[in-house]
Amino acid sequence: MLKTIPSIINSELLTILAEMGHGDDLVLCDRNFPAASVAAETTSGALVQLSGTDTTEAARAILSLFPLDGFVPVAVRRMAVVDDHAAVLEVHRAMQDVVDAAEGRAMEIEAVERFAFYEAAKQAYAVVRTTEARPYGCFIFKKGVVFD
Amino acid sequence: MLKTIPSIINSELLTILAEMGHGDDLVLCDRNFPAASVAAETTSGALVQLSGTDTTEAARAILSLFPLDGFVPVAVRRMAVVDDHAAVLEVHRAMQDVVDAAEGRAMEIEAVERFAFYEAAKQAYAVVRTTEARPYGCFIFKKGVVFD
Repeated sequence: MLKTIPSIINSELLTILAEMGHGDDLVLCDRNFPAASVAAETTSGALVQLSGTDTTEAARAILSLFPLDGFVPVAVRRMAVVDDHAAVLEVHRAMQDVVDAAEGRAMEIEAVERFAFYEAAKQAYAVVRTTEARPYGCFIFKKGVVFD
Repeated sequence: MLKTIPSIINSELLTILAEMGHGDDLVLCDRNFPAASVAAETTSGALVQLSGTDTTEAARAILSLFPLDGFVPVAVRRMAVVDDHAAVLEVHRAMQDVVDAAEGRAMEIEAVERFAFYEAAKQAYAVVRTTEARPYGCFIFKKGVVFD
């Protein structure tokens, strides 16, 4: 527990967020994602398990500390719905609101086909698994720069 | 680098600050303190080296995140001047200003005889060494509670 740090961000997650630099990716996923096996292939190999938290709440806390990359057209990716690539689910709309609010502007969230998403996730720095119950609640955030 | 976190607090120090709980002690010391040997006896065994920073600047950053203990009469201790226990040096006055400002009230800082200070420091969770050049710039902070 620290002043100004949201309480759901434990020391393990805080360490990972701080270790990451510009361009590093963080996976934030639901309870069905193959989080442990994907995490094992990431740069740090770390799987942070945030029980009792969904992706919306976790993202709101993480993005209060973690800047999204403003150097690329798309700093947030999500898993696309299988057989319905254009579908935008409630879990995705909720995340859109969180990322827009965190950055203070309209952000693009790119849908990525399921198996391509797994491959992209393995290139990340670490994986954060929530107990998100809504399907397709799987996201990749690219870290940006702190200017001040 | 993270939003809202002072840049001199690296991921190693951030981890330690977050891992610590109520009543745990943190040593913040100058460049002459036997930091490595004392750190080896602490709970975590960790020595964080903050080069290019004095104890005043480091404390200001640390105490923006780290609450001091309000459950004890004295949450901050410092090394007493050898052969002049009553002496209060400029490095101590500067720290008094920082801790008072961090907590928003007048805080007591207790002077502890040099060898007793070493023993107390070994009971801490970790040691943070700055490149503080002013002598007797050696402090122990007891962590408090985050309420909100």
